Amino acid sequence: MAETALPTALCVLGLGLIGGSLVRAAGAHIPVFGWSPSEDTRRAAARDGCDVSDTVESALGRAAASDALVVLASPVTTFPDLLRTIDETAPTVRLTDVAGVKSVVEDDVAALAPQTRFIGSHPMAGTASSGWSAGSADVFAGAAWVTCLTDDSAVEDWAVVAALALAVGSRVVPADPSAHDAAVARISHLPHLLALALAQVGEGGGSLALALAASSFADGTRVAGTRPELIRAMCETNREELIGALDDALGLLGVARGSLASTGSLAKITEGGHRARHAFDHRGDELQPTTLRGDDMIEQLLAVGAAGGHVTGIARDGQGLAVQAWYPDEL
Amino acid sequence: MAETALPTALCVLGLGLIGGSLVRAAGAHIPVFGWSPSEDTRRAAARDGCDVSDTVESALGRAAASDALVVLASPVTTFPDLLRTIDETAPTVRLTDVAGVKSVVEDDVAALAPQTRFIGSHPMAGTASSGWSAGSADVFAGAAWVTCLTDDSAVEDWAVVAALALAVGSRVVPADPSAHDAAVARISHLPHLLALALAQVGEGGGSLALALAASSFADGTRVAGTRPELIRAMCETNREELIGALDDALGLLGVARGSLASTGSLAKITEGGHRARHAFDHRGDELQPTTLRGDDMIEQLLAVGAAGGHVTGIARDGQGLAVQAWYPDEL
Repeated sequence: MAETALPTALCVLGLGLIGGSLVRAAGAHIPVFGWSPSEDTRRAAARDGCDVSDTVESALGRAAASDALVVLASPVTTFPDLLRTIDETAPTVRLTDVAGVKSVVEDDVAALAPQTRFIGSHPMAGTASSGWSAGSADVFAGAAWVTCLTDDSAVEDWAVVAALALAVGSRVVPADPSAHDAAVARISHLPHLLALALAQVGEGGGSLALALAASSFADGTRVAGTRPELIRAMCETNREELIGALDDALGLLGVARGSLASTGSLAKITEGGHRARHAFDHRGDELQPTTLRGDDMIEQLLAVGAAGGHVTGIARDGQGLAVQAWYPDEL
Repeated sequence: MAETALPTALCVLGLGLIGGSLVRAAGAHIPVFGWSPSEDTRRAAARDGCDVSDTVESALGRAAASDALVVLASPVTTFPDLLRTIDETAPTVRLTDVAGVKSVVEDDVAALAPQTRFIGSHPMAGTASSGWSAGSADVFAGAAWVTCLTDDSAVEDWAVVAALALAVGSRVVPADPSAHDAAVARISHLPHLLALALAQVGEGGGSLALALAASSFADGTRVAGTRPELIRAMCETNREELIGALDDALGLLGVARGSLASTGSLAKITEGGHRARHAFDHRGDELQPTTLRGDDMIEQLLAVGAAGGHVTGIARDGQGLAVQAWYPDEL
């Protein structure tokens, strides 16, 4: 086993928290260069030793010439313009992104830069701070990094993105784009909406309520402290899935309210919620190492992600690609 | 200034987490004895050096003889029987309790042990563990300890309970019983319901969702791990107020859902929630030390609690009771 699938170089477009962190983390492994639409950011990054291009076109030209992996690391609303530029400047370049929603990006790429070798991805690293200066090489260590696969994906392209994610210390989780969006609506976007509502109900209780608030309120409202524009960018771009998750929560709370008002019992929601939290605490307990091989690799990778597993290594030998993964059972 | 208001002795009925912790914490200041309905618990407490009575009647007899403060530290559902026994055995004893709801206890005491010198209280200390062995002398340090006052309360009785709370390191928050119940519905009971619902919506996303769940989900569901019977005991005994708080949350979330579905915007809930969390983070910033004196002490104490303030000291001098407090303004 040898020959990692790492890209020859990395071209990061957008040098905020995630892009800037990726520049720092990947720089230990491969040549990295980047670009930001902000001149201030370009200057700050260059001062810190980052290889910064002056224009997006020159960055993309370098990427095409060196077969670099291009990373869209700016807000998802800027992707259409960037994709049009890519389609004009470097139409067949390797491409990934780090946005928190995946179906819409998949659609944008298919429409605007269809020749790129694209694999969508989502490193689930902290986003409470922002900007180049907030970046750090270690934000990806131990975090899940979703890598998207569809029937049309090329496994070789996936391996390049996955190898990058592994190199910076992440657990690589293969997922269908829409399965990703449905999952993050439930475990990331909904928690933000509930925190925002809870904070307001607490505040509505006045100074006495806030003075008595302890850890259950502090924990339950922590992410309400995230900058409103960041919460909106995440949640509003995943509208359909978030509405579904929110309706599930409203349904459970509505049933609990009815039961509390009529019989006085909260048995159902307390038992169901306690069991669910137990399942969360013990997620991954049954995973064991396995090796994936063969022609149906995309199917196998998606099965690993859907089962709560993840990829830990990628290698190539005489029989082709061999992917090390943690999975609850033999595939 | 001298002569603290501490009780001559403490009689703790119920030796679980809070009762057992109070035995340990108060024992450094005054004589403490206790009783538990469980023989196993009485033996365990005696082995650890606690002065344990064999029967509730003998504990109450000692309390009456020594003018001890009796503390109801068992589940609130056991209070009616205990109060009947108190009314038969030691009808005019000093009395407090540590239950998480206050109006219902106030009513029970008025109906079943009306001659006791009662001041309801609620030390807001951790309750994730339970039992005598889980108790610790330091659980009260830095926590809010609500002490209840009504128009019928005797300030001298309040001072005895408040002095105990101060002696074990708590911030003493005076509050009307119904104001307490409304506040804890918002900042303690509602967070539990939201956590229970969120845990189930996350689990509904399957193994992929649970594998991707990170700190926002972990924090938002933490209290769903509390034992279901403890959550039910808290929440079901505060039904009216909890329904009101839950309806407020459902209203905010319903409006957000409508806005997301129609215009795609989450501006209102994100801005309101962010502002509310900011208010929580800065609660208490404007408090300054003051001294309360005079005939309208109950009114002054309730104003301190309602404004988010708390009591830090009680003394007596030539002019009577002097209460040190933190308050946003001059009273």
